[in-house]
Amino acid sequence: MPKQIDHEKRRKQIAEATWRVILERGMEGASARNIAKEAGLSLGALRHYFSTQDELLAFAMKLVQEKVTDRIKDIAVRDLLPKEKVLQILLEMVPTNEETIREMEVWFAFTAYARHKKDMFDASHDGIFSGMRNLIAYLDESDLLKQNADKDIEAERLYALVDGLALHAMLDPVRVNKDRIKRVIMQHVESICVEDTRETQKRHP
Amino acid sequence: MPKQIDHEKRRKQIAEATWRVILERGMEGASARNIAKEAGLSLGALRHYFSTQDELLAFAMKLVQEKVTDRIKDIAVRDLLPKEKVLQILLEMVPTNEETIREMEVWFAFTAYARHKKDMFDASHDGIFSGMRNLIAYLDESDLLKQNADKDIEAERLYALVDGLALHAMLDPVRVNKDRIKRVIMQHVESICVEDTRETQKRHP
Repeated sequence: MPKQIDHEKRRKQIAEATWRVILERGMEGASARNIAKEAGLSLGALRHYFSTQDELLAFAMKLVQEKVTDRIKDIAVRDLLPKEKVLQILLEMVPTNEETIREMEVWFAFTAYARHKKDMFDASHDGIFSGMRNLIAYLDESDLLKQNADKDIEAERLYALVDGLALHAMLDPVRVNKDRIKRVIMQHVESICVEDTRETQKRHP
Repeated sequence: MPKQIDHEKRRKQIAEATWRVILERGMEGASARNIAKEAGLSLGALRHYFSTQDELLAFAMKLVQEKVTDRIKDIAVRDLLPKEKVLQILLEMVPTNEETIREMEVWFAFTAYARHKKDMFDASHDGIFSGMRNLIAYLDESDLLKQNADKDIEAERLYALVDGLALHAMLDPVRVNKDRIKRVIMQHVESICVEDTRETQKRHP
């Protein structure tokens, strides 16, 4: 059904136009009129794809999350050592380049906007916390997590660290640059894992 | 000069009215008209205290930060053991009650709004990072910080953890409640500090 595919493709194009409008003018500039203009559509044509403004915004926002989720799935299936895989996934969750910083900006603007809207896309239940639990469980199953760790609290701590870094990478990208983010995440993962015995053996033969 | 004092007091009242409007209607509802109405003033009277909308918003925002800073200063002068003092200060930075969650909401809405405004209040340089450096230095001077710690990276990690927790306390207050925040922060501080020798002695006499 090519018509159906075209419809979905066009919805994605409109979502991308929405991101650009939000980045340039903020949520208060993300009117149907401005989005239609950015997407090169009439207001009537826009309404054909999204009957309400909130439906459009929620769709544009879900698409941002899907992009992040897809990148993480790509890493999850790679042939990497467990600790390296966890590091790569965590690094993918913190914006370190122009594209991902833009995604974070859109997420931030949208979440602030949706706070006082009822029945809108709920950013507080986006499944990331359960992803964090999975990462901690994966380290544990791989015999890498420290034995006395409280896994529930470690998942919460990791989640806070990653989202705090993401926030700071967006607000202060000069200080919180890619290299610094990497060092913080590596330091954190090392601190929750048992000492790497191979490394220790190398240092103390 | 009572007139000057009245002027400043009235500016604070207007700032508080601004917070209420932002909480109820979001930034897109924080018009001069709505704020004047909430403050019980005419538009003309409002303009007497703040000549532009951005000046008012920036003032309202600075006042939120001053409230947090004042609470931290109160703890800093208290007669507490170093580690306990650090824990108390960190706990004060994460919203755990209705009042502080509201402050976080206002900060969040305002920061998202100010992102695409030039020359506005800059949330990325609010001095909190240097405060984090001071806390890590204080633990180090008190011989509590682990010897091999990279203090710069530990300050960045602590800052990310605290702001991430603050964000989650606002977005998901049911899961990220006061007790859980306390456990995460305590776990973090314990993990960057040397083992408490008194505790160890008690357990292994």
